Amino acid sequence: MPSINRCVPALRRLRLANNDFQQSSRLRLQAARSAYQPLQRRWQHAEAATASSNADEGPPPSRSGLSQSKIKFTADSYPDLKRDSRFKEISSEDVKFFKDVLGADNAIIDGYSQDATSDLEAYNADWMRKYRGQTRLVLKPDSTEQVSKILKYCNDNLIAVNPQGGNTGLVGGSVPVFDEIIINLGRMKKIRSFDDVSGIFVADAGVVLEEADNYLAEHGHIFPLDLGAKGTCQIGGNIATNAGGLRLLRYGSLHGNVLGIEAVLPDGTIVDDLSKLRKNNTGYDLKQLFIGAEGTIGIVTGISIICPQRSPAVNVAYFGLESYEKVQDAFKEAKKQLQEILSAFELMDSESQKLYNKASGNKLPLENEHAFYCLIETSGSNTDHDSEKLNAFLEHVMGEEIVEDGVVAENETQLKNLWACREGISEASQHFGGVYKYDLSIPLPQLYDLIVECRQKFQENGLMDPEDESKPVLDVVGYGHMGDANLHLNVAVRRYDKAVEKTLEPWVFEWVKERNGSISAEHGLGLAKKPFIGYSRSENMINLMGQIKKLYDPNGIMNPYKYI
Amino acid sequence: MPSINRCVPALRRLRLANNDFQQSSRLRLQAARSAYQPLQRRWQHAEAATASSNADEGPPPSRSGLSQSKIKFTADSYPDLKRDSRFKEISSEDVKFFKDVLGADNAIIDGYSQDATSDLEAYNADWMRKYRGQTRLVLKPDSTEQVSKILKYCNDNLIAVNPQGGNTGLVGGSVPVFDEIIINLGRMKKIRSFDDVSGIFVADAGVVLEEADNYLAEHGHIFPLDLGAKGTCQIGGNIATNAGGLRLLRYGSLHGNVLGIEAVLPDGTIVDDLSKLRKNNTGYDLKQLFIGAEGTIGIVTGISIICPQRSPAVNVAYFGLESYEKVQDAFKEAKKQLQEILSAFELMDSESQKLYNKASGNKLPLENEHAFYCLIETSGSNTDHDSEKLNAFLEHVMGEEIVEDGVVAENETQLKNLWACREGISEASQHFGGVYKYDLSIPLPQLYDLIVECRQKFQENGLMDPEDESKPVLDVVGYGHMGDANLHLNVAVRRYDKAVEKTLEPWVFEWVKERNGSISAEHGLGLAKKPFIGYSRSENMINLMGQIKKLYDPNGIMNPYKYI
Repeated sequence: MPSINRCVPALRRLRLANNDFQQSSRLRLQAARSAYQPLQRRWQHAEAATASSNADEGPPPSRSGLSQSKIKFTADSYPDLKRDSRFKEISSEDVKFFKDVLGADNAIIDGYSQDATSDLEAYNADWMRKYRGQTRLVLKPDSTEQVSKILKYCNDNLIAVNPQGGNTGLVGGSVPVFDEIIINLGRMKKIRSFDDVSGIFVADAGVVLEEADNYLAEHGHIFPLDLGAKGTCQIGGNIATNAGGLRLLRYGSLHGNVLGIEAVLPDGTIVDDLSKLRKNNTGYDLKQLFIGAEGTIGIVTGISIICPQRSPAVNVAYFGLESYEKVQDAFKEAKKQLQEILSAFELMDSESQKLYNKASGNKLPLENEHAFYCLIETSGSNTDHDSEKLNAFLEHVMGEEIVEDGVVAENETQLKNLWACREGISEASQHFGGVYKYDLSIPLPQLYDLIVECRQKFQENGLMDPEDESKPVLDVVGYGHMGDANLHLNVAVRRYDKAVEKTLEPWVFEWVKERNGSISAEHGLGLAKKPFIGYSRSENMINLMGQIKKLYDPNGIMNPYKYI
Repeated sequence: MPSINRCVPALRRLRLANNDFQQSSRLRLQAARSAYQPLQRRWQHAEAATASSNADEGPPPSRSGLSQSKIKFTADSYPDLKRDSRFKEISSEDVKFFKDVLGADNAIIDGYSQDATSDLEAYNADWMRKYRGQTRLVLKPDSTEQVSKILKYCNDNLIAVNPQGGNTGLVGGSVPVFDEIIINLGRMKKIRSFDDVSGIFVADAGVVLEEADNYLAEHGHIFPLDLGAKGTCQIGGNIATNAGGLRLLRYGSLHGNVLGIEAVLPDGTIVDDLSKLRKNNTGYDLKQLFIGAEGTIGIVTGISIICPQRSPAVNVAYFGLESYEKVQDAFKEAKKQLQEILSAFELMDSESQKLYNKASGNKLPLENEHAFYCLIETSGSNTDHDSEKLNAFLEHVMGEEIVEDGVVAENETQLKNLWACREGISEASQHFGGVYKYDLSIPLPQLYDLIVECRQKFQENGLMDPEDESKPVLDVVGYGHMGDANLHLNVAVRRYDKAVEKTLEPWVFEWVKERNGSISAEHGLGLAKKPFIGYSRSENMINLMGQIKKLYDPNGIMNPYKYI
């Protein structure tokens, strides 16, 4: 784990007080209450409460909490979607073939030979409880060759397939719509190799992101991707969805970091492109097509990725600011002054922090309320240097009155508490019933306007009231990765409601299109965003994408009804 | 320009003397002679000579030096290559069509209506003087729409096309083989936009890399790619060849940094994917196919790229080491101790430095000879911090006797001198007649073995002697980007000779294949490496690449005879 170091603006002679805390049962998160004042900063005694998740955009760690009976079948939520009759209904012969390929008993959940409904539910339902498929067959291969045999059979027999990693997706891409069989990668979890000179890590697709990162931590390196769902999501799924996450600002996108993939095409062909080379200019870089393809042209079974050195020094600061203009000023200054050590710059609005506080019971780090909050993380090789840079930055933004108030984590517990204020928003948003989530890229100057306008719309049409239980909308919150111009718009609702949906769609997409943004920055298309791709891509581009789909999956068996 | 700061290992109390220098006529490069000793370091008076180029892997800045008459036609060097008779011979009607599209007089070099041989030569010949095509028509569109009209016409009429940027390629990809018409992007050189908050830069493909970087420097940013040919190469060509260069170690590959492209397919379709978003997960990332496609599926006309902040502090150090084992130790330590500020770690062997000295007349920075040399560059936001880190590193590697001797640049002139020792090798290699160049990725532990074995082969077969003019091979030199495991093997020859070629090929490729390396790390395939792709890619992968070529360029008009 990174060491935590003090960061005390010397000129201000801030006083640092101890911070009590309690551990929550599951994630050891708690909020510290503190004040960061111009001439004095103190961490007050934390009044800890149970934080229920570290999920930013991720799932709860266990599926046991899912109240399955309440999840509507996707087929019922989307009555216009019909099962494609070209796809074969599974027969006992098919099941026998799959059993022969897989060998092991624990490699198949067979709802055809027996009642396996409850076992199947965890694979049919997504963690948001919005999507529920009706598969009766889950296959869990443990080798690329098994995946190849299975896919070839499915392709030859027109059996529809839903590839599945950790099932932490947010757009309904990871669960079936009808009876598509699930190929779950969870048993393919070998770390194949790691070279600590080059930093190149090679592993099966089913390795859980957090396990990969823990392994790398033991070798002084870091997985160049981090997201709230890391305890559950799999690196193959990360590749398939081109996950962005919390530190893209620093480590860049998977398109740059992934050096090679192994994948299986629908016809069983193994794409053996598991390069361990940082540079290899010998032909079209086909692996890139699989990054973000959401399992629609093949199944990623292995990845090779370049991992940076792990920074021994990590600092986290949390600020309050009075306006979105000041947030932009703070971001510009952070880029300038913290440059090579800046590893995250996150934005949270006042409403998101109040909701987090309300849902988790955790107190917020700052005493007074501010219109906006930012979380800054630095990661570097030298504790003293980083502290000095951060101090200089803090002094500047406070001296210039860009920032109103703030705290800096002094130990790992406080660091986690500060991150929890950001990472806890996602779960808080759906804590009181449900959530409409939008994951958008918007040019920075206009980024927050969307939240303001969205709130106005709900106020005007009378659908929102934080106090009035009769109103469907509890609140509209905005937060996200400022460093990537990636806004999360969450509409926290007491219940799902067609009127709310109509207020939001297609208005949100039109709004984003007008500003040349993206209707899906990092979550992908899946089932949820499929109809709206036209708001972010031209007809030309969609046609060109269709060619690729047809080239690799001419029978259309891979993750049907979704994507483009 | 970055400021240059002192970097003095405090414990060693090194004395720093002034350094005289003269300017070379063209590139203001000169070598400083200096000694970096355990207890004393001095920069002695430089005895400057004319450095003839800053080319690492790039061209001389002017084509006037090319002795065109000596360059063999590619068709003669490769007698097995025949002109594809499917391709139409250009008629006066075709020329008229192109003139109508282009409008301006300076937009076409027409060798059909008049004798334009000398004007055409600069476009027909590559800078290595190895490849020479026979085009009689060069088109210089100044808009994407013109490119679209031209390509559609060529596709409809089966006219073969050679897209061309700065013509600085090293594998014969940028010049025609027969009479393919050249579409040169040199007139498309508008910078379209830059946003200094996000760092997103959008420009025409024909912008020269150095001009893009100079523009960004004025705005406190840096183009995330640098290479010796920067004064001539164009950013569209950089994308088309997936250029790697000197600082990939720090800024990562173009696959990660390029956010969008605009390109024209052979049928005239404009791929309008010029996204200014850092995150956009809405469908297959098709732009990736054009990065490194070497103009075989379309012509890139515009790019959007994310550019990092320019570091105000840049340090360069140059070391001598006694063995390749020590080089690896130094690299490991540099990664660990310099982490976020390390921006280059370059390797040069003794022979490469002697050859540079001999060809350029520039003295080398260190007095004594060493088996290996490394150049380290750091780039960061804080001069004092960077110096402290670099000092600590230097003290460590000297204290541990990893490094034998070294110097640190104290001013910009010295910094350029040190870089010249690395960047001048490419030109020095062909200074005495010619060069056989190999650009390879090899796992680090085995990387230098190739040079040793290659030298042995030439010694054994009696083809090499540095002194004996009757031997074709002058020397074998090894250098490259240690940080990317990218070795350049240059065989400097007095004249091209079949016996030399037979010694090298296919032996080099087999050697690399056995170690799972790449036969083209960053130079690409072009014409030179096309026959050898099988040494780095499986049959499967080559077949899959063939599908992509067929999909986008079914008539095969784009850059024929090359790539795959």
